[in-house]
Amino acid sequence: PRSKLPDVGTTIFTVIGQLAAQYDALNLSQGAPNFAPDPALVEGAAAAMRRGHNQYAPMAGVARLREALADKVERLYGTRYDADGEVTIVASASEGLYATISALVHSGDEVIYFEPSFDSYAPIVRLQGAQAIAIKLSPLTFRVDWDAVAAAISPRTRMIIINTPHNPSATIFDEHDIARLKALVDGTDIVVLSDEVYEHVVFDGATHQSMARHAQLAQRSVVVSSFGKTHHVTGWRVGYCLAPAELMTEIRKVHQFMVFSADTPMQYALADALAEPNSYLGLAAFYERKRDLLAGALASSRFELLPSRGSFFMLARFRGFSDERDSDFVQRLIRDLRVATIPLSAFYTDGADTGVIRLSFSKDDATLIEGARRLCEA
Amino acid sequence: PRSKLPDVGTTIFTVIGQLAAQYDALNLSQGAPNFAPDPALVEGAAAAMRRGHNQYAPMAGVARLREALADKVERLYGTRYDADGEVTIVASASEGLYATISALVHSGDEVIYFEPSFDSYAPIVRLQGAQAIAIKLSPLTFRVDWDAVAAAISPRTRMIIINTPHNPSATIFDEHDIARLKALVDGTDIVVLSDEVYEHVVFDGATHQSMARHAQLAQRSVVVSSFGKTHHVTGWRVGYCLAPAELMTEIRKVHQFMVFSADTPMQYALADALAEPNSYLGLAAFYERKRDLLAGALASSRFELLPSRGSFFMLARFRGFSDERDSDFVQRLIRDLRVATIPLSAFYTDGADTGVIRLSFSKDDATLIEGARRLCEA
Ligand SMILES: CSCCC(=O)C(=O)O
Ligand SMILES: CSCCC(=O)C(=O)O
Repeated sequence: PRSKLPDVGTTIFTVIGQLAAQYDALNLSQGAPNFAPDPALVEGAAAAMRRGHNQYAPMAGVARLREALADKVERLYGTRYDADGEVTIVASASEGLYATISALVHSGDEVIYFEPSFDSYAPIVRLQGAQAIAIKLSPLTFRVDWDAVAAAISPRTRMIIINTPHNPSATIFDEHDIARLKALVDGTDIVVLSDEVYEHVVFDGATHQSMARHAQLAQRSVVVSSFGKTHHVTGWRVGYCLAPAELMTEIRKVHQFMVFSADTPMQYALADALAEPNSYLGLAAFYERKRDLLAGALASSRFELLPSRGSFFMLARFRGFSDERDSDFVQRLIRDLRVATIPLSAFYTDGADTGVIRLSFSKDDATLIEGARRLCEA
Repeated sequence: PRSKLPDVGTTIFTVIGQLAAQYDALNLSQGAPNFAPDPALVEGAAAAMRRGHNQYAPMAGVARLREALADKVERLYGTRYDADGEVTIVASASEGLYATISALVHSGDEVIYFEPSFDSYAPIVRLQGAQAIAIKLSPLTFRVDWDAVAAAISPRTRMIIINTPHNPSATIFDEHDIARLKALVDGTDIVVLSDEVYEHVVFDGATHQSMARHAQLAQRSVVVSSFGKTHHVTGWRVGYCLAPAELMTEIRKVHQFMVFSADTPMQYALADALAEPNSYLGLAAFYERKRDLLAGALASSRFELLPSRGSFFMLARFRGFSDERDSDFVQRLIRDLRVATIPLSAFYTDGADTGVIRLSFSKDDATLIEGARRLCEA
């Protein structure tokens, strides 16, 4: 058949995951824990199933979870979203992004996003018959050039996709980014789609710049986030969208046909977990320690580590000691050293190769230590 | 915002579900059991979580589930799908339909489907910039007029969506339908999208006409089905697609960005359930008894019951004793008799009202008996 995505192959996470399995490599590639969630969360899901919560959840999500979430968001970021009309539980943040872009981006529209980037944004935009306009973050520091954004905005710009903490570069937005973004979209009808799945994983005392923290931006934003990343259950497929009612009405029109509803017992278990603030307030410290453990263990390696300010990731430059393409380098690491990472070029539509790999430290300590030991042999 | 689906409101299942909750009505509306799945299935999911299966599953699905499914399909229908390249586990049959249509239907294409119809098909097609061409099934008997299909086929026809057993009419395809369909698509590049979520719920000794039973059709078909309907866990959000590799490659390109993967522990639990053929072979008899129970209990009602040959549904005509619009009639049943059903007009894009409601008998016996008792007061 004629492909609608002729330039798209299998997602890099699957390609590397399969290679890692084939060579029995330690997996520092995907942003998924290799350790267990809170046993109480697992038992909560088991109890929900035994209580009979195995059939379709409400399309917008289990009410108790939407309410707990609206409370949490208000407590943390100050914006009160109406649990009935402005909060939707989706079957993964991925689905939230897909439903939002499908609902709001029309054929002929333009959508601005930043590269390197999570690999779904541009294909989803293109599937709408819209144009995905990539703006490259600055080399190695990965800051947004807001003047370039201003220049890229046109009357057809319908949406700007942001992502803080940023996958894969591990940078975060600061007040300056927020001010520039606010100034650029003010008075336009541009929607901000804010991928905040690593919202609780911000390091060194910095503040997560949720759109829900900035009233003016919140009014034109769709915030997408993930229970999987926060509660160590990436395989449970439960995420959420927050948006003003008039945007949410359109998003739900698509969501109801895309998956109808998210997993029911998992929603009940997560509603209980949300009542327990420790379930997420300790997360930044938890991952900061892992970041430091990995960085420390790599100190004697030949990699130049780039600063990780948030997310599950750290970038490492190998260009100082190898001229290989990053994808070849990554394959060699898997084959020869049995450690799996992601080549940064996979996050650029033009495949730009800067001699950098992405490491995930969402792994138990033993894996991080052994992974770093192997990388020190590179 | 400018809506991409201006004519679409909230799905009827949500609208009626909310009304039912508001009036504390017995719910014979949605095709979801109100009884428990096999406790072994629930304990299987709990055990999978405890064993640590809580992170991303492979994008195409847990290998053991794909293999068990390929075996089951071959045993039942004769076609061997390659578990690696031709079987994909999706996050609900809904997602399977959405991913398939998104991957294969281009802007400007035409897609033929039959009305009354499950409410997602036409909106998903329209969201691709394609034209959804509704062919009405014959009044009250709900047969396909294949001559009308032949007349509707054009060089732009990209796909025909079929659904057997049929929601909402409870009809099934027979050999004649298959022969006509085969003759129509032979020599074209039309894809058949076959929604078979009620594949195991075919009554009176009839045979389910899966596309996987007909080699020539299987080669150009995408079969979508649901573990939720078969294993009484509609809230677990696990379905699947079967398709030749060249179609599946395109479907996975979309699926990987739409939800990435389906729920992990549920996939492990379902893989075990599939090893146990009783888990689905008894399903037709199980629901046939419920169909007969409901029909018997309604024998003294004023409704004219239309034959149910498969699915969880039965249609009931009230036009013989009421001139109300079906949606008004349904609201009155909820309000006055506290029993919820679905107006058939909700399954027509033009809202055609034939004085018929849809009843779901996927309910425990007490609910069916009490629901029928209330309906006898209409
Ligand atoms: C479906 S992959 C989600 C994101 C992630 O885990 C990664 O970037 O590694
Ligand atoms: C998401 S609704 C699925 C189909 C169904 O259950 C119904 O038609 O009632």
